[in-house]
Amino acid sequence: MKTNFNVPVKVNRSTKPDGTIVSVKGTDLGGKGIVIIAGPCAVENREQLFATARSVCKSGARILRGGAFKPRSSPYNFQGLGEEGLKLLKEISMETGQAVVTEVMDTRQIDLVSEYTDILQIGSRNMQNYPLLKEAGKSRKPVLLKRGMMATIEEFLLAAEYILDQGNYHVILCERGIRTFETSTRNTLDLSAVPMLKQLSHLPVIVDPSHGTGLRWMVPSMAKAAIAAGADGLIMEVHYDPEKALCDGQQSLSPDEFGILMADLRKIASAIGREIL
Amino acid sequence: MKTNFNVPVKVNRSTKPDGTIVSVKGTDLGGKGIVIIAGPCAVENREQLFATARSVCKSGARILRGGAFKPRSSPYNFQGLGEEGLKLLKEISMETGQAVVTEVMDTRQIDLVSEYTDILQIGSRNMQNYPLLKEAGKSRKPVLLKRGMMATIEEFLLAAEYILDQGNYHVILCERGIRTFETSTRNTLDLSAVPMLKQLSHLPVIVDPSHGTGLRWMVPSMAKAAIAAGADGLIMEVHYDPEKALCDGQQSLSPDEFGILMADLRKIASAIGREIL
Amino acid sequence: MKTNFNVPVKVNRSTKPDGTIVSVKGTDLGGKGIVIIAGPCAVENREQLFATARSVCKSGARILRGGAFKPRSSPYNFQGLGEEGLKLLKEISMETGQAVVTEVMDTRQIDLVSEYTDILQIGSRNMQNYPLLKEAGKSRKPVLLKRGMMATIEEFLLAAEYILDQGNYHVILCERGIRTFETSTRNTLDLSAVPMLKQLSHLPVIVDPSHGTGLRWMVPSMAKAAIAAGADGLIMEVHYDPEKALCDGQQSLSPDEFGILMADLRKIASAIGREIL
Amino acid sequence: MKTNFNVPVKVNRSTKPDGTIVSVKGTDLGGKGIVIIAGPCAVENREQLFATARSVCKSGARILRGGAFKPRSSPYNFQGLGEEGLKLLKEISMETGQAVVTEVMDTRQIDLVSEYTDILQIGSRNMQNYPLLKEAGKSRKPVLLKRGMMATIEEFLLAAEYILDQGNYHVILCERGIRTFETSTRNTLDLSAVPMLKQLSHLPVIVDPSHGTGLRWMVPSMAKAAIAAGADGLIMEVHYDPEKALCDGQQSLSPDEFGILMADLRKIASAIGREIL
Repeated sequence: MKTNFNVPVKVNRSTKPDGTIVSVKGTDLGGKGIVIIAGPCAVENREQLFATARSVCKSGARILRGGAFKPRSSPYNFQGLGEEGLKLLKEISMETGQAVVTEVMDTRQIDLVSEYTDILQIGSRNMQNYPLLKEAGKSRKPVLLKRGMMATIEEFLLAAEYILDQGNYHVILCERGIRTFETSTRNTLDLSAVPMLKQLSHLPVIVDPSHGTGLRWMVPSMAKAAIAAGADGLIMEVHYDPEKALCDGQQSLSPDEFGILMADLRKIASAIGREIL
Repeated sequence: MKTNFNVPVKVNRSTKPDGTIVSVKGTDLGGKGIVIIAGPCAVENREQLFATARSVCKSGARILRGGAFKPRSSPYNFQGLGEEGLKLLKEISMETGQAVVTEVMDTRQIDLVSEYTDILQIGSRNMQNYPLLKEAGKSRKPVLLKRGMMATIEEFLLAAEYILDQGNYHVILCERGIRTFETSTRNTLDLSAVPMLKQLSHLPVIVDPSHGTGLRWMVPSMAKAAIAAGADGLIMEVHYDPEKALCDGQQSLSPDEFGILMADLRKIASAIGREIL
Repeated sequence: MKTNFNVPVKVNRSTKPDGTIVSVKGTDLGGKGIVIIAGPCAVENREQLFATARSVCKSGARILRGGAFKPRSSPYNFQGLGEEGLKLLKEISMETGQAVVTEVMDTRQIDLVSEYTDILQIGSRNMQNYPLLKEAGKSRKPVLLKRGMMATIEEFLLAAEYILDQGNYHVILCERGIRTFETSTRNTLDLSAVPMLKQLSHLPVIVDPSHGTGLRWMVPSMAKAAIAAGADGLIMEVHYDPEKALCDGQQSLSPDEFGILMADLRKIASAIGREIL
Repeated sequence: MKTNFNVPVKVNRSTKPDGTIVSVKGTDLGGKGIVIIAGPCAVENREQLFATARSVCKSGARILRGGAFKPRSSPYNFQGLGEEGLKLLKEISMETGQAVVTEVMDTRQIDLVSEYTDILQIGSRNMQNYPLLKEAGKSRKPVLLKRGMMATIEEFLLAAEYILDQGNYHVILCERGIRTFETSTRNTLDLSAVPMLKQLSHLPVIVDPSHGTGLRWMVPSMAKAAIAAGADGLIMEVHYDPEKALCDGQQSLSPDEFGILMADLRKIASAIGREIL
């Protein structure tokens, strides 16, 4: 395919035409199966995390998400529980058997976060934090790299290249909405990024319809659309009591809503010849 | 639903909670069925139009598209066949039984275009051409209104309100990609507009994945995603020989590609409990 | 200069290296002098227009602006006085000796508007209304063409080319703010468009800091910046009682504010070796 | 002034109505005087840095810029000289008497960079790198904070608030262009950010016309416009041989061009009642 930029060599599909599979605790991301990641925006306390984790696990989420270090626009917002949050994630994941993904914001946190979790998330605001990308590349943990909210596809692939260039090929790309002039949604979910990234790169591609829309009622529509567009997985925010969430409650599904959505996603996956793992 | 703007009264779903159905030549847009509109970007000549129309009809496109008056960025590009193109559209549609949609760019063209076609298209560049909206509102023909490439959801609904305010409620809203910083696709197809518009308004909502992506190979992925997101129909460019098209060849499907896609769309429609008409 | 697009031939500076001067009632736009256009957003009534016109004339505005046909986002907003507004513009301009610029939105209005005014304005929403551009090109009146709020420099020049291609070289380009993600201002005034357009084209370039910012208190800063950036003129909204304006009051200067600004602009013009006419 | 967001308390102008003055080596940023910062994009070697520094100092740049740690989109581009670059900056600044500003990208670099330089720059890509902002806040060095290319004014002020919240009030805000749909310039320099930030906050505001435009020939126009808009200073890239620069050569002024520009800037400053320090 012709593009208006050069696709960097290590992320380039031509170097691995069959695609990369990132395996985490026995779950394969990037193969025929579709992987669902779910959990709360932030780990708030034991009860909230455990109840939410158990429920999303029961509905079929293979991987648990939950933030311990939170990048918040305002210094006066809840900044996360830090190591205490990591410990809670570890504890519940040992019970449910799920893998855990959580965000790392600082090169100094990588060792600590790596101890407790299975996948390092690098968030949108840090997509071009090159020292962090390099350290994640050295860590050998799988990395879930979110597209910056104003990053081009080219820049997104170059950011991933920083990680691969350090020898770590276990990178999952995540489209999570870009910033545009439209304000009725929190971001504009760019689903065309899914086929584009799959075409240009061998890395698995997932979608975050929670941040992509910012609206709970819209998450199911866009989750279905993401699967239909060819995504290898989804990452979604679920909270056992969204109205009381310390962050992103307005875009978090309740456990019941998540359960219903999972059933719908299985139908869409089947319609395109895939299945939800 | 709470929005950050006031939804105008006549397009507002609350005024017609069951939704509006726009019927054209026996085909219902906005009901449970999903309607596919296909055809060339521009009517180029009899052979090109007729061959393309017959083939998309055979594959299941209920409505034929084709431009006779073309809004081109450069004055030196092909500007369309004008009335000659309208006559060809009329002729082939009488053979295939399809309804016809074609663009109208000028208040002075409305009577002429109305004579030959079933649906008046108002294109992206004219979404805020208020005299044209008013005249389309007076014409009583169904109107396919495309979202401006720079238009917010609020402005899009206000533009439709101009038409309804003249007494014409037969308006079909079309998401066709918005302009963002991303340049690897021609536009950024904003599929979140589909659930948003369906939520806020009673009007049928369709998607144009051809202009939305500008890339032939990407049209099928986004067409499927649009149906999964809840669109009531699709409008797609098909050309019997895309490499030789006078406009938009790089985003036009061949008849064969279109036929294969139709089969895939039927599966997605079925997975969400709908069907392609 | 190298650009990432081809500058169309007729607007191209290489065809008129010394630049085009558009003369209106003895005032030259595009020469060494800088021309100030001012007046109300819309003509509301005789008293409002006449008081405002007299005051901006006294402060040095050579050209009077005022809308008779108003493109409003909502059909329920004030749509302008139409021909009655044109007559008032004509009447007061005969008293003050100013030239008049007013917007034309429809091909059917061009003859009428041409009768009463000196410059036809084509607004942002109609920058790609090609039938309108062509008719304006045939009319031989000077045309003030505003950049679309999401138009690239390339598209802006191509729109102007439509007018020149009909034989009318009296076109004034106007930067009026583009749409971006930023919401603290109404638009983002792209002052880099001024040197860019001057470099690529021979046409005069002016700036509209009123629409560009949407904020009365910010107009003076950006007006000064526009002159410093090399603009050949400014178009600004002034209302004799901004709080009571029927449209755009929040971005309209009072006559006193306008008078003070004119004095400041003269200093900036002098600092770059030009003068306010 | 009414805004569509809450201005955070510590950066809020109401807490310091007279404005903050950041003093560096006897130069006051944020007072009546305007401060010019200039130097190469990256420190490449002794000869390049020293020749450039001496020339910009002679032309009146009070502060020297130069990158030792470079955030580059591609891992295969020149990444900076690191500590060797810092040493060269220190050495030449002791000769010229200039203060030095250089970028810090990683929390682990802050102590090292603080040793050698006078102002810590936090670049656009790190504007929402909260651990870095917090460490910069603890360091007590003046901080030059660049607006993220995707950051709203609200987010920009919240990022600064992170620094002030740690007790460090010596923050200089820098507008450096935002990302929009326009591609003829590298970024779109948002000069309206200058009056907006000055109105809302007590912090000094400077402008980077080099990154803002990406085009050497356009830097002078936008530098003049920035001063006219009320900026307290400018930061510009100058290279003793732009064609051979390892980064950003196409937007770097030659020493001669810089010298001519300084003379022009003095005239503009004088026209608005200020002076270049």
